[in-house]
Amino acid sequence: MERAHNFFAGPAVLPLPVVEETRDAVLDFANLGVSIMEVSHRSKEFDAVMLETQKDALDIMGLSADEYACVFLGGGASLQFAMVPMNFLAKKADYVITGEWATKAFKEAKIVAESVKAEAVKVASSEEANFTYIPKELKWSPDADYAHITTNNTIYGTQWRTTPDVGAVPLVADMSSDMLSRPLDFSKYSLIYAGAQKNLGPAGVTMIIVRKAWVEEKARKDLPTMLKYKTHVDKGSMFNTPPVLPVFVVGRTLKWIRAMGGLEAIGERNEKKAKMIYDVIDAYPEFYRGTVKNPEDRSRMNITWNLPTPELEDLFVSEAKKRRMLGLKGHRSVGGCRASVYNSCPMESVEALVKFMEEFYRAHK
Amino acid sequence: MERAHNFFAGPAVLPLPVVEETRDAVLDFANLGVSIMEVSHRSKEFDAVMLETQKDALDIMGLSADEYACVFLGGGASLQFAMVPMNFLAKKADYVITGEWATKAFKEAKIVAESVKAEAVKVASSEEANFTYIPKELKWSPDADYAHITTNNTIYGTQWRTTPDVGAVPLVADMSSDMLSRPLDFSKYSLIYAGAQKNLGPAGVTMIIVRKAWVEEKARKDLPTMLKYKTHVDKGSMFNTPPVLPVFVVGRTLKWIRAMGGLEAIGERNEKKAKMIYDVIDAYPEFYRGTVKNPEDRSRMNITWNLPTPELEDLFVSEAKKRRMLGLKGHRSVGGCRASVYNSCPMESVEALVKFMEEFYRAHK
Repeated sequence: MERAHNFFAGPAVLPLPVVEETRDAVLDFANLGVSIMEVSHRSKEFDAVMLETQKDALDIMGLSADEYACVFLGGGASLQFAMVPMNFLAKKADYVITGEWATKAFKEAKIVAESVKAEAVKVASSEEANFTYIPKELKWSPDADYAHITTNNTIYGTQWRTTPDVGAVPLVADMSSDMLSRPLDFSKYSLIYAGAQKNLGPAGVTMIIVRKAWVEEKARKDLPTMLKYKTHVDKGSMFNTPPVLPVFVVGRTLKWIRAMGGLEAIGERNEKKAKMIYDVIDAYPEFYRGTVKNPEDRSRMNITWNLPTPELEDLFVSEAKKRRMLGLKGHRSVGGCRASVYNSCPMESVEALVKFMEEFYRAHK
Repeated sequence: MERAHNFFAGPAVLPLPVVEETRDAVLDFANLGVSIMEVSHRSKEFDAVMLETQKDALDIMGLSADEYACVFLGGGASLQFAMVPMNFLAKKADYVITGEWATKAFKEAKIVAESVKAEAVKVASSEEANFTYIPKELKWSPDADYAHITTNNTIYGTQWRTTPDVGAVPLVADMSSDMLSRPLDFSKYSLIYAGAQKNLGPAGVTMIIVRKAWVEEKARKDLPTMLKYKTHVDKGSMFNTPPVLPVFVVGRTLKWIRAMGGLEAIGERNEKKAKMIYDVIDAYPEFYRGTVKNPEDRSRMNITWNLPTPELEDLFVSEAKKRRMLGLKGHRSVGGCRASVYNSCPMESVEALVKFMEEFYRAHK
C-alpha cells in the first residue's frame, strides 16, 4: 500500500523509518524472540530504551539531566491540565487563553483552585476574536505559583513565536502540537508537557520535562501517588508499567530528529514547509482566507484557512482525498480547512498539497 | 527470529495472530495508506475499532451495554487505585489485602480517605503469612460505599477462585492479571479494572468495565475532568485521544478470545496449562516448593515456587533462558521462580517448561 499524504492534526504522520523500525520490533524486539508489546518493562533491553529516550530528549533540548527530568505518562495532555494545578497551585496561577486546549487547561485549574481555595487567573484571552491572534499585552502576577501558556494552538493555527518573559515565576507550557519543532531556550520553562501524537510518536504517551528542584521544593506531597510528579521523577518514569511501545516509538523518533540535524535543521525545514503553504494563501487571499489575524502569530505546525463557501471547503477536502491527501478538514468546532505539517510531514506531501491548492484555485476561482 | 517461550508476568505474551495483525497495521491500517500509529482517532475507521472493541468486551463478559460501559484509559491499574476512591469513597470502603497490588490500592484509598474525611477499612489480610493464601473469614461492612478485591495476585501466585458475597455493597475488582481468563458472573461486580499488559494487550491501556447507574448516581462531580469516570462513560472513551494502537491490539485479542471459543474454552485451557505445571510441583514437593499454602487458592495465571537454594533458583532461570524460556525469575520483592501462563501463553510453551522442570529435577535432585 502506497503511503498517503497525512495531514491529520494528531495522531499524525511519523517518519517512515520509524514506522518500519516499529513494524520490525512488533515482530521481534532486540533479538529476544518476543514483540516490543510482549517484553517486560523491567528487562534490561527495555530499560536501555527508556534511559536512552530520556537522555536523547534532554540532549536535543539542551537541558541538563541534573536539573531536569523527562518522564512518560498516560492520559494525554488532558491529564496534565489537572496534574499541573494539583501539584503546584497553592495560591494563584496565571493562564493565557489562546484556544480550546488553553481553555480546557484553565477549566481544570479552576476545578483544582476551588478544592484548595486558591485562584486561577485569566491573564489574557483572544477568545473575543475567536482566538485568531496571540495576546501581546500580558500582566503577569509576580507572586503566582506558575504561569501557563499553550505554545501552539492546533485548532486555530496560531503559535507563540517567542517565549514570554514571566520574570521569576515558573513557566509551564503545553507544547503538545509544537514540541521539538524548532530551537527554543527550553531552560526558560519549569515544566513542559506534550501528548506524543503530533511531533513525537503515537497516541498513548505524554512527555513531561520538569525542573527537578521545583518538584522537590514546591509540589504537594499529599496527592495520590500516580498524580504526583515526584513519584515519576524519583522512579525514572518506571514507578509502574510505562506505555512500552509508545515510548519505544518516541525513542526512535528522537533518533530521527538527531539524524535530521537536531532542532536547528528541523526548525528550518518546518519554516520552509509552512512558508510554501502560506505563500499560496497569500497569493490568493480572497480564495484561501487564512484565519490568523496577524502574520507573526501564524503556526508553522497547523495551517488553517477558509474557502469562500462551506460547499467549496467540502469539495476541497474530498478532491484532496481522491489524491490521497488525508486530514485536511478543519476541526469540527471551527470548520474550514487545516493542514497539519508536523516535523515528520515529508516535503513531498507539502509539494503535493501546494500543487493541488494551485489547481483547485484555478478550477474554482 | 524464532519465537521465545514467554513467561513474563506482564507485559506478557500475546497471540501470534494478533502480533502479526498488529505488525501489518503498523505499516498500513484499513487500507488508508497510514499506520495505526498515524491515523486520527476521530476517523471513521478507528471509531469502528473502538466501538467494536467495547462491544466485544461486554459480549464476552455477558454484560449488557445498557447497564455497563467499557472504557479505555492510560495510567495502568495504579491510576485506578486512586480513581476508584476519588470517585466513590464518601464514608467508608472495605479492602481485602492479598498481596502487593492490593496493598498499593489500599494505600491510595487511605490517601483519598484522608482528604475527604472518610475511612478505608482493611477487612482482612494475609500479610502475616506473606500473602500465601486468600482470607476466607471476611466481615464486610453492610454500609460501605464499595468493597475492593484483587482477584489474582501476580507476585504471590494466589487467586480468588470464587466471587465473594458482599451483599448489596458495590464490588470493585482489580482483575489486571486474570481478566477474561475464565467464566465468571461479571454482573456481580460494579467496577472492574485491568491493565491490559497481561491478558488483553500491550502496556499503555487499562480496560474499565463499570456499571453506568453507579457512576451516574454516586460518583463525585467536582473532580478534575479526566479523573471522573463519568467523563469517559459519557464520551464513549473518546473524551480525549485514546491510546490508539493499544486499543487496536486489545480489540484483536478479544476477537482471538471469541475465535478460541470464548471464556468457557479459554478457562478450560488455562486450567489444563496450570495443572500441567502444578502436577510437577506436586510430584516433587521437596524440590519444587510451591509457595501457596492452600491448593484451592492457587492461581491459574501465575505459578510460583522456590527451589532448595537461591543458587539452584538462579541456575534454573539461566538454564531455562538457554532453552529460550524467558521471564521465569520470581518478582524482585520475593525471589524464587514464577511462570506466568496467561491466556495467550501457548500449550507448547507450557509443554517445554514442564519437560525442562522434569530434566532439571533429575539433574539436581
